[in-house]
Amino acid sequence: MPAIVDFEVLRHVMPQTRAVKAGDVIFKAGEPGSEFFIIQEGTVSVRLGNRSIETLGRGEIFGEMALVDAKPRSATIVAETDGVLVPISEKQFVLMVREAPYFALSVMRVLAQRLRAANAALGGG
Amino acid sequence: MPAIVDFEVLRHVMPQTRAVKAGDVIFKAGEPGSEFFIIQEGTVSVRLGNRSIETLGRGEIFGEMALVDAKPRSATIVAETDGVLVPISEKQFVLMVREAPYFALSVMRVLAQRLRAANAALGGG
Repeated sequence: MPAIVDFEVLRHVMPQTRAVKAGDVIFKAGEPGSEFFIIQEGTVSVRLGNRSIETLGRGEIFGEMALVDAKPRSATIVAETDGVLVPISEKQFVLMVREAPYFALSVMRVLAQRLRAANAALGGG
Repeated sequence: MPAIVDFEVLRHVMPQTRAVKAGDVIFKAGEPGSEFFIIQEGTVSVRLGNRSIETLGRGEIFGEMALVDAKPRSATIVAETDGVLVPISEKQFVLMVREAPYFALSVMRVLAQRLRAANAALGGG
């Protein structure tokens, strides 16, 4: 998946970043969560149980379902490398979207792809 | 579902409206589509085959999957009453989101709810 974030465009509205170390658990399946994350540097592993189902890298996002509801996290995210994450709250998302409206479409596309993939995995294939 | 559009806030960036008559078919399942619609006045019926599965009214949207991919329409929409629709292209959506960033979140929530409902209907729940 290509990067969905243009860091240059969003730099002045990006919130504080968070440095992570390889092996850090960013969040666990089942935990509540109200923010999503953009990967600025490094890679993370998306895990269901002990199985890694996907690796995400620079410019990709995770935890984006937090934008649409208050359900618990559906997967566990572990840093594969040292890296830098940008946590985005709903309020921050709205500020970023005002600045870069196409960012909203990018996040919507990720959301739709992942919901469809979950649909296929759960339902019918 | 509550209205997701504040017509007062968006009035000056809203595109031209389209008047419809009761019984008009807005689009059919299987057709290509690149725009979605906001209902400004009246109600529409969402149909799968000959079955009406939902009625939508003022401030609600339909056809929103056109924002995220180029797949054919998944349902048929028929006007139940005379009414007024606002067709929104991707470009128009971006203009509206710049003006009213929460509109992006509203559309994302509708998208997620409908994908989940489709998931439940197809898959398991």
